[in-house]
This record gives sequence, structure tokens and C-alpha cells, in this order.
Amino acid sequence: MQRRDVLKILSAAPFLGMRSAPQSSAAAPASHPWRVFEDAFLSEIAFPLGGIGTGTVSLGGRGELRDWEIANKPDKGHGLDNSFFALWVREAGGEPRAMILESELKPPYRGAFGIPRGGLPGMPRFHKGRFLGSYPFARVELEDGRVPLQVTLEAFNPMIPGNDVDSGLPVAIFYWRLRNPGGSRIEATVLASLENRACWKQAGRTENRLVEDGGLRGILMTSDKLPADHPMRGTLALATLHPEITRTARWDRGEWFDAQSLFWEDFSLDGRLEPIALSDASPENRNDVGSVGALMSLEPGEEKVAAFLVAWHFPNRQNYWVEEIFGYQADEKGPILGNFYATRFEDAWSVARHTASELDRLERETREFHNALYATTAPAEVLDAISSQMSILRTNTCFRAKDGNFYAFEGTGDDHGCCPLNCTHVWNYEQALAFLFPALERTMREVDFQHNTDDSGFMVFRTRVPLGSEKWDFPHAAADGQMGTVVKLYREWQLSGDLEFLKRHWPRAKKALEFAWTQWDPDRDGVMEGVQHNTYDIEFHGPNPMMGAIYLLALLCASDMARAVGDGAAALSYEDLYRRGRAALDSETWNGEFYVQAYERAREEKYQVGAGCLSDQLLGQWMAHVVGKGHVLPEEHVRRAIEAVYRHNFKETFASHANPQRIFALGDEGGLLLCSWPRGQRPLLPFVYSDEVWTGIEYQVAAHLIYEGYVEEGFRLVRAVRNRYDGERRNPWNEVECGNHYARALASWSLLLALSGFHYSAPERTLGFDPRIEAERFASFWSVGGPGYGLYEQERRGSSFAATVKLVQGTGLEIARLSLPSISGTAGVDVRVGGRQVPATLESVGGRSLVLLGEPQTLRKGSEMRIAFATA
Amino acid sequence: MQRRDVLKILSAAPFLGMRSAPQSSAAAPASHPWRVFEDAFLSEIAFPLGGIGTGTVSLGGRGELRDWEIANKPDKGHGLDNSFFALWVREAGGEPRAMILESELKPPYRGAFGIPRGGLPGMPRFHKGRFLGSYPFARVELEDGRVPLQVTLEAFNPMIPGNDVDSGLPVAIFYWRLRNPGGSRIEATVLASLENRACWKQAGRTENRLVEDGGLRGILMTSDKLPADHPMRGTLALATLHPEITRTARWDRGEWFDAQSLFWEDFSLDGRLEPIALSDASPENRNDVGSVGALMSLEPGEEKVAAFLVAWHFPNRQNYWVEEIFGYQADEKGPILGNFYATRFEDAWSVARHTASELDRLERETREFHNALYATTAPAEVLDAISSQMSILRTNTCFRAKDGNFYAFEGTGDDHGCCPLNCTHVWNYEQALAFLFPALERTMREVDFQHNTDDSGFMVFRTRVPLGSEKWDFPHAAADGQMGTVVKLYREWQLSGDLEFLKRHWPRAKKALEFAWTQWDPDRDGVMEGVQHNTYDIEFHGPNPMMGAIYLLALLCASDMARAVGDGAAALSYEDLYRRGRAALDSETWNGEFYVQAYERAREEKYQVGAGCLSDQLLGQWMAHVVGKGHVLPEEHVRRAIEAVYRHNFKETFASHANPQRIFALGDEGGLLLCSWPRGQRPLLPFVYSDEVWTGIEYQVAAHLIYEGYVEEGFRLVRAVRNRYDGERRNPWNEVECGNHYARALASWSLLLALSGFHYSAPERTLGFDPRIEAERFASFWSVGGPGYGLYEQERRGSSFAATVKLVQGTGLEIARLSLPSISGTAGVDVRVGGRQVPATLESVGGRSLVLLGEPQTLRKGSEMRIAFATA
Repeated sequence: MQRRDVLKILSAAPFLGMRSAPQSSAAAPASHPWRVFEDAFLSEIAFPLGGIGTGTVSLGGRGELRDWEIANKPDKGHGLDNSFFALWVREAGGEPRAMILESELKPPYRGAFGIPRGGLPGMPRFHKGRFLGSYPFARVELEDGRVPLQVTLEAFNPMIPGNDVDSGLPVAIFYWRLRNPGGSRIEATVLASLENRACWKQAGRTENRLVEDGGLRGILMTSDKLPADHPMRGTLALATLHPEITRTARWDRGEWFDAQSLFWEDFSLDGRLEPIALSDASPENRNDVGSVGALMSLEPGEEKVAAFLVAWHFPNRQNYWVEEIFGYQADEKGPILGNFYATRFEDAWSVARHTASELDRLERETREFHNALYATTAPAEVLDAISSQMSILRTNTCFRAKDGNFYAFEGTGDDHGCCPLNCTHVWNYEQALAFLFPALERTMREVDFQHNTDDSGFMVFRTRVPLGSEKWDFPHAAADGQMGTVVKLYREWQLSGDLEFLKRHWPRAKKALEFAWTQWDPDRDGVMEGVQHNTYDIEFHGPNPMMGAIYLLALLCASDMARAVGDGAAALSYEDLYRRGRAALDSETWNGEFYVQAYERAREEKYQVGAGCLSDQLLGQWMAHVVGKGHVLPEEHVRRAIEAVYRHNFKETFASHANPQRIFALGDEGGLLLCSWPRGQRPLLPFVYSDEVWTGIEYQVAAHLIYEGYVEEGFRLVRAVRNRYDGERRNPWNEVECGNHYARALASWSLLLALSGFHYSAPERTLGFDPRIEAERFASFWSVGGPGYGLYEQERRGSSFAATVKLVQGTGLEIARLSLPSISGTAGVDVRVGGRQVPATLESVGGRSLVLLGEPQTLRKGSEMRIAFATA
Repeated sequence: MQRRDVLKILSAAPFLGMRSAPQSSAAAPASHPWRVFEDAFLSEIAFPLGGIGTGTVSLGGRGELRDWEIANKPDKGHGLDNSFFALWVREAGGEPRAMILESELKPPYRGAFGIPRGGLPGMPRFHKGRFLGSYPFARVELEDGRVPLQVTLEAFNPMIPGNDVDSGLPVAIFYWRLRNPGGSRIEATVLASLENRACWKQAGRTENRLVEDGGLRGILMTSDKLPADHPMRGTLALATLHPEITRTARWDRGEWFDAQSLFWEDFSLDGRLEPIALSDASPENRNDVGSVGALMSLEPGEEKVAAFLVAWHFPNRQNYWVEEIFGYQADEKGPILGNFYATRFEDAWSVARHTASELDRLERETREFHNALYATTAPAEVLDAISSQMSILRTNTCFRAKDGNFYAFEGTGDDHGCCPLNCTHVWNYEQALAFLFPALERTMREVDFQHNTDDSGFMVFRTRVPLGSEKWDFPHAAADGQMGTVVKLYREWQLSGDLEFLKRHWPRAKKALEFAWTQWDPDRDGVMEGVQHNTYDIEFHGPNPMMGAIYLLALLCASDMARAVGDGAAALSYEDLYRRGRAALDSETWNGEFYVQAYERAREEKYQVGAGCLSDQLLGQWMAHVVGKGHVLPEEHVRRAIEAVYRHNFKETFASHANPQRIFALGDEGGLLLCSWPRGQRPLLPFVYSDEVWTGIEYQVAAHLIYEGYVEEGFRLVRAVRNRYDGERRNPWNEVECGNHYARALASWSLLLALSGFHYSAPERTLGFDPRIEAERFASFWSVGGPGYGLYEQERRGSSFAATVKLVQGTGLEIARLSLPSISGTAGVDVRVGGRQVPATLESVGGRSLVLLGEPQTLRKGSEMRIAFATA
């Protein structure tokens, strides 16, 4: 099977829930591929709103605020009481009506005491709701025959590639858009209520202070109940930029249901609140609730928008996690790690003030990123996979301590990270941080090499914090994680061109690589056969492709790095070992159809693969493509093997699959098994997880299929994943493996890399694209973080070929060479930067068109480079 | 509106999920009104299997075992690992197949680590499942094109009115019925697996002992980890009566998923287990799993049944509840209350042995009860309401301590009873225990009067256990609860005819009644106006119909009781006060349409009713009908008031209802509001709960509507309730108020009393029926508990009238008089007992036909009395 036209693919099989919907924002293009959810598909949606290292509050499918995880810990299902948006409306001459700005609750209606009452679920809601998600933007559309308005919410948190500071604000931004489609004037109030949770789960002694701050007005929520350094102490802010407002610092504090009753009575009467200016703190164990409303008057046909900010500030991030499964357990009061954002802001109001003052820019730049990403030529499900999983970087799976470093669990349990921290083998699969925020990615290498690698080259594959804590004492290093980390160092160097960075880490990286020679490849034949602990949490023995290929790739990358730092002898020895290893691994593990584990005791010992067809067998090969290293095993075998993985392991249904392990796909769902034994010889107890389905591996394999030209197969795999996350089965913005928001799913970024064939080498100032979709017009987002991100566009018709590289945002990208698709019959090249022609020559190298610029060009923000091939 | 024909009513509005389904048991009639659930309506179903005071395990809609609440505490959502039924099957010449005996799981698929794995959810299941419920029987039908068998489960726990011992067995009985509809012989195994939870939530040191006990074989599960008197120490038994079995005392104890993997591998191969005879206890913190399978060979067309028993025995019921809201808190190790069942059985195996040895009788007598109940002429939803809510008596809402007494919470939180105990005002609404197991109901009167009523007549309305504990120190007695308890004493005396019982309690009952004269009616005008704490957990002030009518009824009942014990003076004074109070209450609280609270400060003070139309306003009148006391307020006003309650408070939809209180009905659901203010004057903060919807009050009002002849309105109300409990929205076998399985819903029994007009006075040996459905043929179940239960059938055509009273079960019912409908043109009566004519005369009294037997007759089990009116 070869490359196919994307249009044919798009019509091949259904992808649930995606369609084009009108976009009403002026800043965004006229149409946009939102994924749209209605009815039963709303139930599981929880769209995370928050920045890198800030935690999140999620927007539910009905428009409700749910899963408040803003105080430095995961907390699925955790609601704040009396925290919601509400609408009051009165058409001229009509009766007033008050509604919660959510669509109706759907069954089941569980609860031993009736359904939980945090969000006033007993109040009227909109009959019909739609949720539209396109990370980092979410939209809720509400309709009800009783309400004479068109009501839309747009919510987001700023996200700008390369700008980790503005992508790390602890705030959720809400635009409520009201349109009056009728013939009468309408008075309306959009109101936000928020519980003061300034002492988080220890309620009481809260103070709500009304704040006037230029155009920004609202409530700062504090409490002095806890000491300043307490992990649960923080502040919240509820604010609006709306010019005409109503607000109350607090609700009634009576018993029973007095507070809710009196609030609703007051609000529903005239859409204005009897203001209570706070004079005292709330009682012990009781939190005040504050409300801020935006008053509007809408003439027929008129549309108005009210902007609300919910900001939070919990500076005392703590190492709270219990790691007894790894041999130690944190004290009840573990060390304080702090938050990077708290080094910039003193409280939640200062977050709100900053956000408000920069709001136009933050919104514009976020939309530019979003628009550029969605300009990519790809099926909806692929863009959905790429964009939705970026969110992982901005959930509690990840954090940014006051030391500025980026740390991450693998994922999160419902109330704790799992497992800590910076796990080398799980984070092998991740590519989004590396390309969107490479400066943060580099902090992970700092930790890997400077803190976790000892003099023998043994790298502990989990990080304990604060840095300087006693290292984790697990007996094994992870073969895949350790080799992958060497590769990732190469990737970071290639993207940044930062030779000092490379020099700092190379000595430890060299030890880490050569640790293989004592542990895994003692006979130094280029093939691992020792005890290979790996991402399946067990140890493989004997030659096997998964460890083998990544080892080969590490040798190749190390060779380049050694040469760059002046260690030519090492470079040569790595290259030699690579050559020998490549031949030996292929010979020892190729079964004529795919690669297998060559270990004679695979059926006698527990937890091996043996003759199985492992989906991850070419993990190293996929990484090789990502870092631009081509085929580390014979291309023909690689292509046959990845096609065999698809053929044997992709299942359209799991209805007859017997899985005693963890369950991530079942019944009528499709997905990729981690392993199968198409030729029999399945061990009685094969490696744990072998019967499971992991989205991270599905994306890894899908991207690899695309790299090898099996584009439709790759798309089909992605579609199966995203159909499992359809809003009814599971939350589209939370792919689960060993925890929520599981980092391995960040492999979805490699779909973009594979589709576009994007590659950038800063040391060589070479930018390359190699689209896998043979469309006449192809476009792709690309990013290298700080230096810039942008859009690549390509048009080809017969032998006519033109391409444009645009830098949307960034400090500037240096380009000396471009590697582009080979077009038969081309005789020359025309290159223009900002319309100005620059000298360039064209070479054909290895089936590629290599454009050599006369002198290097720096592409600046907003400018573009246009390359056209002259026809012979 | 007057009485209507039931057939017309049945077709009036839809009742979701009920239909006739074939019944395949030979013992049951050919057709039966099962409520049938499919698809999305399966999700919330949890059908409780257990006896009175035993706790329950629930059968889920898919056939799964869920909510294991067998260790003396509620525990919603608590699953046992690896506890399920499974099928192995092989058609002659075909491949074997193994399936879990459940239908497929449906979305959502939640879980931070994949869906919870307790029941091997990763194994294949049946594509299609149906759940049929008709308490105490549940049925699951499974279909799958891959399985060449028709598979049906029937599950129950014995329930026999009047037999509280056999209705209190800690066991769940499962009949798996397999039918081979094809042309080839089929080999099959039905297998049951159970986790050893003999130390309940403290895992480990479990021992699974294989037991051979005559035809009963299986596994006794024990653990010596906990001391013998520990609340969590118990035993379980898994047993089958099947002649050919396969079993293993335990699964593998390996790490990771070894146990599940090896079990499934073994079972799926040939349907037989490699037996592991247990030689040692399991490690600390690990529970063994045992499995027992029934082997079958089915010829074409053949059907076979395998019977399994799951029995449990946790003798050390503890007062575990935390009552700090009532001023005290139990020690972590509270007093042991014990279980009545544990005084009869030494362990779970002895429970299983007893059940197995009596199984034929237990099943037959349970079916006889079930069949008689379902022979009642009533719409499906009414029978569903009556039968489904009987289950409350056999959940953890209730228990039976080793002292033999029946105790009950109001309902249960998900993991604790709420609120303790024997709450007089909530249990006012309950009628099922009183008529099905009156001997147990009488133990509640024992506690009310002998333990909770002091010399002043103050009755604490909650019970502390063990008896003899310091009484609860709440400052108020409950006006409704205290008066109701006097009425209930009358009811118990009337049903039992036990004069000694009455004499024992009368002195305290008299004080309890006359306590009203110091607290609530100090001016002794027959109308309460003092501080009246009540079932809304607040205090009413001033004259009001809810307290007023129940006070009047208490006076009437007390008058009879006083006379029976020889206190004629008291009787006269009560009657006098009743007469004066009736006139005064009617005059002070009747607003021309319904009864209101006559309290001038009702809008100034919190939590009053004022001019509202309270659904409970005629609670006392409803009780008066139940105990056969007619109208305690003017009939015309009563009729208009109850009709006004229906008209004002019944809502077809709650979509526009604003409810800041607890939420038991919402969106498109229908239901009866507790109160409305149709003439305005709603207080700003009316009594708490006023905006809520309680099924217990809905049943109370529905029954009252039926009593007053508003039959269709009553049915409509019941339909609204049961449509809210449709399997998708909520569990049909768990109506919720302040807790699960809330006792107030036991008011549904009064629907049966109202429809049939059933009344029995043992002192007067008078049996009466007064059907509210004017069908040509009418039938109704009736019960007085130990003396007997049976079926009343009536045929009328023009002036032809014949009736039959059959005693299905019981020690014998004495009858001297029958009160029957008045038929115009009758001139005489023919009465036969067991075919033999007995002398009788016919009188017309108060619009009723009174049949006076020449001498009293004792109706014996299995015999019937036939009464025919001779036409003039």
C-alpha cells in the first residue's frame, strides 16, 4: 500500500463527532474544524483550562465548571460549591427569567441524598447544549425556547509555542457572547459565582474583598486560616472587564438552604444583586460565596460579549505524593517545591490584572497558534489527536517548580500523580513539549544527566524532588529510557543548536550510553541481550528489536554528538558498533515478517515476548524518524514489520478479546493491541500489559506507519483512538493509561512530524519538509519553540512546485538549507524572503531536493520564505 | 372525578419499562408482569438480594454482582474482586468458548487506570442482555450469536409474609437455566467465582475449604486474621446442588495479572479447572478466590438448571455509626449488637446447608407470595411500586439485632445508615412491615414505648442502641411521630388482637398522647398550636392540618384502646376532645380549597408553611383510612383538599422549577412537590424541603387519592415516581430521600390497602374489602402476617356479586364478620368455607354490606371462603 490522497481517506470511515462549525470570532477564520458534541456525548467531557504548571479547572460538556484541580494536586470529580455562570434576561414588556448557563443534566441521577448540589443543579437550565472543542479553545452553545437570546461561551487559557511564561498563567478566561436575534430590546445579566476556597479543603475564615483595578473589577478571595507556607493556602480572583456590573462580596450565611434560596430570589427578581460589602471573615468551616455580574442591554440584532477571569494562586506546591511502591513515603508535610508562576505573581488578583492588561495580545497570539495548527492538511481526527493531547502539558501530570524546571509524572490518579517523576521510558514517547516548549524540555535533560546519572552511567529512571534528595533505589536502569534519553539530548541539541548545552551534558550522556556495555551489551556486539528493564515494568532478556533499535539509534546520535564536542574516537567507535549491531540485530530477530525476541527461555520465564509481534518493536525506528536519522534497520524489513504490526495487532472490535489485564478498549471499540502471537507460541504468562491498548503506542505506531507511507493505516489507527474518546465513552481531553492525562499520549505530536516530514537542524541550519500526503496543496504547522513556529505550505501540479515557510511567532529562525520533496524535471530554484529574491542553488540528494542558500537567512516573525522550482 | 375502570387507566399514559414477559418456571403462572429493562435502562439497576437483617448483594442490570453490602454496613459501589458467573460452552465438533455471564459493559468507561477490574471486565460478555425484575425475583436473559444456548438467570432470596425467620436468611440463590435450541449436543460449564472476604476489608490469611455435604458441595471461606468478636470477621460460602461439578479451592497467587490469566486460560480450555486443594492460608493482605462449576451436557432441545448459593455470616454487627449530628459519636469500636440470624447459624456453610435442605419449600412459598401479590388488579406501575419498595425491609436500612428486635435507619448513605434509628415520624409512612411482618413491627412499638417514652410522656423520636444506652438528648419531641406512634400501636393491636400487647404498652401510650396537653395543645381544644417539631426537621407553629389531623386520629384510636383496657373515662375524654378539635381545626385552617397553617407570623419566621398547599396536610387522614377510622375531618373538605394537593403540587415537568434544596426530580421528570403557594404569600424562606419531591409522600398522597376515589390521579402520581426510577435515571430498587432505600417509600404498601379497601380487626374478627376499581373482576393480595396472607377475588355483574377469600399461607385467620361492597337489590347471602355452607346473614350498614357469620370461622392455610349475594 502506498501514499493515498487525503480526500479519499477522509471519506473512508466515520470519525465520531467532528464537523465544521461556524466560528464567530473575528480573529479566527470563517470556518474551523471544531469537534462537536451533543446529547449523550457531553457527559464525559472535561476540557482542562489552565497553563503549564498551574493546574486546571475543567469545562464540562454542559458548560459546567468541574474537576477543580488548581491547588497543585489532581482531584478528579472535585467540585466547588455554588460556582457557576448564570443568566438573567427580560425581553421588553416580558417577564424576567433566570437560568444557570448550562444545558440540562442528563441521567443517571445518582446520589444517596439526591444529586450532588454544588452547582445549584435544581435551578432551570438550557434545554439544549452543544460543546465544541479545539484545544486550547472550548465553546459551549446554549439554546432554549424560553430564552430570547443566542448564547455562546468561549473559554481558554493562553498558549503560545515557545512562550512558556505566557503559556503558564493560572487563569481561566471566559467570553460570554449574547446575541439578540429578535425584535425587542432585551435586558440581561451574565453572572459568575465562585466559592472562596482560599484555604482549599480546610474551609472557613474566608474574606472576599471587592476590588476596583482600572477597568478590571471583581472579588479577591483570601483566608488567613492557614499559615502563609501551608500547601492549601492560596487566593482566588473572580473578575470582569465589563463596564456595567452588579456584584456582592458574599451570599447570605444562614442555615439550611438559606444562602442559595436568598441568592436566587435576589438574582431572579431583576438580575441585580443586593450588594453585601464584606465586613468580616466567614465563620470557621464555612466558605463565603461571591458573585459578579455583567449588565447588558441588547437592541434587536445586537451582540455583546462579557469577559470573565477566574484566577488562582496556590504558591506552596508540595511533594505530597506517597511513593511507598518505590520504597519511600513522603511525610505528611513533604518538602515545598513551589510554583514557577508564584515567582511572578503575588496573588490571584495580580494574575488577573496581568492577564487582563495583556488580554488582547494573549488571545490574539493563542488564536494565531491555533489557526496555524488547524491549517494543517490532515483529517479531522489527526488534528484532534494532536491538539487535544497537547493539553497534557498543562494538567497536573506536569508542573513547574519554583526552580524553573519542568517536572512530570507519567499521568495522574484521580487524586495523586502516578508515577513520579520524569520517567525516562514513558517520556520517550512524548514529542510535543520538545517541539513546542523546547526550553522546558531541556530542563528534563538537565535533571536526567546532572542529577540522575551516576559515575557508572547508571541513570535512575525516576526523579526525586526537590533535586538533591536521595536517589530512588530501584535496582534496574531502564534500557529503553536510558537509550532514549541519549537520543533526546541529540534532539534538543539539534533543535536549539546550543553547543554549550551539549557540552554540559555530553560527559554524562556518554557514560549513560556506554553503561550499556556493562549492563546490556557486555560483549559489545551492538545488540542488547542482558536484563533489560523497560516501559512494561518488567525485564526483557536476550536480543529484541524494541531495545535493539533504540540502542542503535542512541549510538548513531551519540556519534554525531561526540563529533560535535570533539570526541572523534568515540564517534568512530559508536559508528562501528552501530554497523555491527544493525546487522546482528536484523539477523538475530527478523522472522521473515517482523522482528521477534530471540530468547530461548521466552516461554519458560515470565513476562517475555518470544515469538510475539510487539507493537513497540520499532520504537527506536520511530524515534529515528523523529530526529531525522532515517532507517536504523533495513528499510524493507522495517516497512514489512510495521505493516505486520498493523495487520496483526489492530483490531476493529474487542468483543471477543480476553484481557485479564488493564482495560482501555473493550466491546465494539477498535484499537491496537500491545502484542499478538500470530504464529502461536504465546507464553502462558507473557509480559504484563501485552493484552492492553495504549494510546501512546497507537500514536507512535500510527506516526511510524505514516513515516513509512502507510498513511491510511495510520489515520485508521488514530480514528480508532479518538472514537474511543468520544465524550460518551471517555473524556476526549484525557487519554488514560497508568493514570489520567497520560504523558505517552503526547506521541500524538509525532503525527504532525510524520505527515509533514518536518525536520530542523539548528547546527546545520537545515529546514526540511517531506509531506506524506500527495495533495496538490499541502500545509502544515511546524514549531521549534522559542526561535519560532509557523506554517509550511506547498503547492504542486505536475512538475510545478512552490513552497512557503512562514514564521508566525518567534525570535527568528536561521536557514541555510532546505530539504524538500524531489520533483522530476526541475531545473532551478527561486527563493524569496519577504518578497526579496535571495541566491540559491538546487541539488538532488538521496531522492530529495536540497536548496542551498547563497547565504543563511534569518526568518523573522511575520515574514515568509517562498521557494519555487523552475521547470526544465 | 370518580372511580374509573382500570383498563381505561392502563391505557392513559405510558409507564416506562413494564410489560408482560413469558415466565419459564413451572411453579409460576404462564404470564407475569415483570418490569423489563434493556440497553441504557440497565445501567443503574441494582436489585438487592438478601433477607431481613442480613444485608444484601445486588444483581446488576447486566447480570453482574455489585454493591456487596453483606457485612452489616451499607457500601454502595463496593465490589468483590473476581466474583462473577462464567460460562464455558462447546458444541459437538466445534471450538470451545468462554464468556462471563453478563451482558456487555456500556459507556462511560471511567477510571484513571482503565475501568475497574474486579469482575474481569476485559473478558468477553454477551452482546445482548435483558433484566426482568419483580421483587423478590430478578431475572437476566442473555443472548449472543456466538453462544448456541439460551441462557437465563433467576435470582432471589426467600420472602414469605409472616415468616420473618425464613425471610431473614443471609443468602442469595441463583438458578442458571441453559437451553439447547439447536440440533447438536452441547457441553457446558456454568461457573461461579467468589473472593474470600472473611476478614472483609482487612484482607489476608484466608482459607478456602472444599466441603462435601450430601448433595451440597462447594467452598467454605474463612480467615483467622481477626479475632472472633471483630466486626469484620465472618465467613462466606459458595455452593451448588449440581451433581457434576468442577472446582478449585483457590486461584494462583502469583504477581501482576497471573491469577486472572491462569484461571481464564484453564477455564477456557475445557471448562474444567485444575483443582488446587487448599493446603495453607493466603498471605497477609491477599485474599484467595475460589470457583465452583456445574458441568452439563445438553442434547438438542434439552434444558437444564444449575442452582448456586452464595451465603454469608457476619455475626458481629456493630453500632458503627457516627452520630455527632445528634450529639454523640460512637467509639471506633462501638458496642456489638449482633445479628438475629447468627443466633440460628454458626457460619455461612450452615446457612447454605439450611437453605439447600429447605430450598424447594422456600422457593415454592416465595413464589406463592409473589404470585398472589401479582394477581392483584392494578396497573403495572402500582404493583411495581408496591413490590419494589418491599425490598427496603431487606436492605441495610433495617437490621435485626441478636435481641430479636427490628431496628431501622431512615435510609442509608452510601456507607452509613442515616439517620439512626427507628425515627418515629419517618416510620409513620411505612405500612409494609406492619402488614407483612407485624411481629417485627411490634418490636418497634416495644422500643417506642418501653425505652423511648419517659414518665412525662416525652418520646425521643430516635432510638439509641443497644437498648439501655443513654437516650438521645434532642430538645423536641416530634409531634407527628409521637401521635403517629399512638396510632401505630392501635394498628398493631387491631391486626394481632393481642390484648396483652396492648395492655403492656397502653400506660406509656396514654402518657405519650397526653404529652400533647403540656407541649402542643396546652389549652386542650383538640388543636395543636405549640412548637411542633416534625418530619421536615424544623418546628411548625400554630394550628395546621398535618399535625392537627394526626392528633385527632390519635385521640380516636386512643379512645378505642382505652376502652379495650378498661379505661372508659379516658376514652370518653378523648372522644370529646376529638369532636371539639375536629370542628376547631376545620374552622381554623380551611381556606375554602385546602387546609393551611393558621399562624400569623408564618411569613416573618423561618421555615413555616403559611398559606401554602402542603402535600402532607392530610397525613393523619391517610393514616385514618389505613387503620379503618374513616374521615377525621369533614369528608367534603378532605376530598377537595386532596384534589387540590394533586392539582397544585403535581408537576408534569420540573424544567422550570427553581429548587435550591435537595433534588429528587428534575428536568423532564414528573412528581409531587412537597408544597406550593397557589394563592401567593410564599414565605421568603419556607420550611426546608418545601421545593423537594419525596416518593414516600407521593405514595401517601397517591394512596389517599385512591381512598377518596381519585383513582386515576393516584395512578398518575405513582407512574411519575416509577418513571423516575427507570433503570437509566435511577435504580428501580432504591428510592432515595435522605439516604438510599429510604423507609418513607414503604408507604407504597398503602396503595394496595387503598385499592382493595382491605381492613382487618382481629379483636372484632372483622375482615373487610372495599375495592376502588369498579371492574367486573377484581382481585387483591392481602396480608396480616403470621395468621395469614392470601387473595381476595370479587366478581360483579349488575346485581350479581360473589367474592372469595383465600388463605395462601399462615396459621389461620378468624372471621366473624365481613364488610363488603354494597350491591343494590341483594336479598341474602350464601357463605361457604371449603365448599361447606356456613350460616350467615346480610346487613346493610353505612353503605356497606355486612355479612354476619352464624359462628366465627377460622380460615386455614389453603382453604377459602366464598360469599355470594342472592339477588332479590
